[in-house]
Amino acid sequence: MAARAGIVVTGTEVLTGRVVDRNGPWLAERLREAGVDVGRTVVVGDRREDLAAALRFQLTDHDLVLTTGGLGPTADDLTAEVVAEVQGRPSAVDADLEARITAIVERLYRQRGWQVDDDVVRRGVRKQALVPEGAVTLGPVGTAPGLVVPGPGAPVVVLPGPPSELQGMWDEALASDPVRAALAGAATLLQSTVRIWGPPEARLVGVLDAHEAAVGPLEDAGLEITTCVRDGELEIVTRYAPEAAPAYDGLVAALHADFGDLLYADDGRTVDDVVADLLLARDGTIATAESCTAGLLAGRLADRPGSSSYLLGGFVTYANEAKTAEVGVPADLIASVGAVSREVAEAMASGARARLGTTVGVGITGVAGPGGGTPDKPVGLVHVAVDVDGVLTHRELRLGGDRALIRRRTVVAALHLVRQALGGA
Amino acid sequence: MAARAGIVVTGTEVLTGRVVDRNGPWLAERLREAGVDVGRTVVVGDRREDLAAALRFQLTDHDLVLTTGGLGPTADDLTAEVVAEVQGRPSAVDADLEARITAIVERLYRQRGWQVDDDVVRRGVRKQALVPEGAVTLGPVGTAPGLVVPGPGAPVVVLPGPPSELQGMWDEALASDPVRAALAGAATLLQSTVRIWGPPEARLVGVLDAHEAAVGPLEDAGLEITTCVRDGELEIVTRYAPEAAPAYDGLVAALHADFGDLLYADDGRTVDDVVADLLLARDGTIATAESCTAGLLAGRLADRPGSSSYLLGGFVTYANEAKTAEVGVPADLIASVGAVSREVAEAMASGARARLGTTVGVGITGVAGPGGGTPDKPVGLVHVAVDVDGVLTHRELRLGGDRALIRRRTVVAALHLVRQALGGA
Repeated sequence: MAARAGIVVTGTEVLTGRVVDRNGPWLAERLREAGVDVGRTVVVGDRREDLAAALRFQLTDHDLVLTTGGLGPTADDLTAEVVAEVQGRPSAVDADLEARITAIVERLYRQRGWQVDDDVVRRGVRKQALVPEGAVTLGPVGTAPGLVVPGPGAPVVVLPGPPSELQGMWDEALASDPVRAALAGAATLLQSTVRIWGPPEARLVGVLDAHEAAVGPLEDAGLEITTCVRDGELEIVTRYAPEAAPAYDGLVAALHADFGDLLYADDGRTVDDVVADLLLARDGTIATAESCTAGLLAGRLADRPGSSSYLLGGFVTYANEAKTAEVGVPADLIASVGAVSREVAEAMASGARARLGTTVGVGITGVAGPGGGTPDKPVGLVHVAVDVDGVLTHRELRLGGDRALIRRRTVVAALHLVRQALGGA
Repeated sequence: MAARAGIVVTGTEVLTGRVVDRNGPWLAERLREAGVDVGRTVVVGDRREDLAAALRFQLTDHDLVLTTGGLGPTADDLTAEVVAEVQGRPSAVDADLEARITAIVERLYRQRGWQVDDDVVRRGVRKQALVPEGAVTLGPVGTAPGLVVPGPGAPVVVLPGPPSELQGMWDEALASDPVRAALAGAATLLQSTVRIWGPPEARLVGVLDAHEAAVGPLEDAGLEITTCVRDGELEIVTRYAPEAAPAYDGLVAALHADFGDLLYADDGRTVDDVVADLLLARDGTIATAESCTAGLLAGRLADRPGSSSYLLGGFVTYANEAKTAEVGVPADLIASVGAVSREVAEAMASGARARLGTTVGVGITGVAGPGGGTPDKPVGLVHVAVDVDGVLTHRELRLGGDRALIRRRTVVAALHLVRQALGGA
């Protein structure tokens, strides 16, 4: 049985959604790689009682508990203090640590040219240098050190909120004695992902049912399957111990047999990965012309390090005049068929390709809403066109959801049209 | 004292970060508006024991518990069943509900042209029509109905995962008898936000300390303050009952006195809002030319409904040739000073403005990494330029963090440069 860990994410800004938590998922993924199973994450605001309750809850049935955030110099940063209290360990200032943090803070303030009252800074540093009895300190990477606080029960790993600081002290946390002791029983747990473009989730249920009828319950075979529908894609994630690999291979074969070309990746790659690989394989280049998505497709293509090998550039042709000025869509074409039309999408794709001399051009035009819809061209109608070496393909989308969802789903659909036009899976 | 609610978000895909949860924050915000305080959100994977433990934990000290997700037709959708078990209420199929869901599903499949085994569909529908004894059903908006399941203790509101479905049944949930009874004691709680661009958090600590020295502890005055540093901005969110409004006004006055022009919004507006308002106020238009951000600024400007009033378009000039071809940056300028330079950023800003005839042009060029850095021009060096009616302003950024963070912080910095160039606060 795998070791189990629980995560506590602190911060009212996370609880209320002003900040999206990236630490919980990052830790869950690192822990899984280390053979540790994460069953629950608790998000708490900056309140002492809620944080203490969350820690006690997670400590009840876990081998290890991790916290993120709340290590700053301000009064609402309570984590180290509350963890010490819950673990029953009095804290004291570590003079050596205090001196190290002071040096870091002074250098930082000098670099930025910040003027701050010395006494305020000194109090903040002293707060960050408080260490519970018997705890191991980590870092600091930024100004806040992390902690590993042993318990009577499970140890608590206390990590800072800024993702780069948290990630920078992860290896040290994992190598600390209390964590190594807690995870002594951890076994390897594999995770594999299959991605399918298009079908309803119920069809997957049918396929899984049929496969189980043939080979027996997948859970008994050691496969833990979760499925997720997102932006028109079906994602099937399976966790399993190495000895269940043959059962997993059987499942993947069954999915291939049923879904055929819709199953576009069984090796964990995303559609972004597949498009990048297809472009690199043929030494191709790509240019975009976007209206309703207004740069989101180009921005997503550039998310990948090294995308400059194939992404030459793009055009945000939001206004009709921009469609004409930037990629040469004839004004009378727009006047006759409308900006949201197959013809204009195709002219945008070909225009982007011609302007930058790329292998591939993509054109996107649609009604993202909430305004601007007509009975003929309602909110959610989007035309996507792809021009590969002068050969055009086109798809008309009818999307539901709000403005943000329509734009995001359009980007995903455009990536799939590029994939198909380049002959991918 | 305000009523308290706890949220349970279900889904392994959320726990592991493959999907970003938007429901927890949305519910927390709606509950706050209804005078209900949310202290904790628990995220659990699709496992029976973890979900039951999370429900029991949230039920211990809350007036109301809400769950999201896990109402689909597949086997890993467990929420309704586990809530019924925890609340001690046996479930039975509601024949009327079953007929309604069947009609919805059949229409959906017909529209999409999906072919799915009838028996699989029937079983899924029957599962979704299971209602715990004494529960109120909500919707359905999509195919999954919501539930309000009374307890012996607090009631549990069971909502579907797709945000549009959850949001579509929120008013009905709030109006249901068990929820109204649970929230009978709810009092109004206001929330106001101040945003400051640039200073370190420690400077805020000094300002808050000085203000407390003058007027007494803010907590005693009924102000609950949380601060958050994000992408170079300092966000100060204060929650308070209406009678504490004078104390809040005093705090805002103190912040204005100390931070001056750095405090760019005390009315909850974001920098996106401020830039949009400034453009609308002068009937201005804007065009972008982006290299390292590759469309993210234009995409963000277009996030706002109605942005077509001022966003004419933009250029993604990722390759050097694109900088020349799209916005006329002289190739010999790039050759002499390099693509990442003040001169090229300015030429991009002016070129974008000239091509589309806008009031404002923005140029962004930088090294987002992880590769491409040199001792002279390291990863994180970004030049941003803004051209307003032919008047150029420029800022050189030296950003830390990974590729995604550098690109995101660049977009925020560019928005602030536009704000300042347009004379905003």
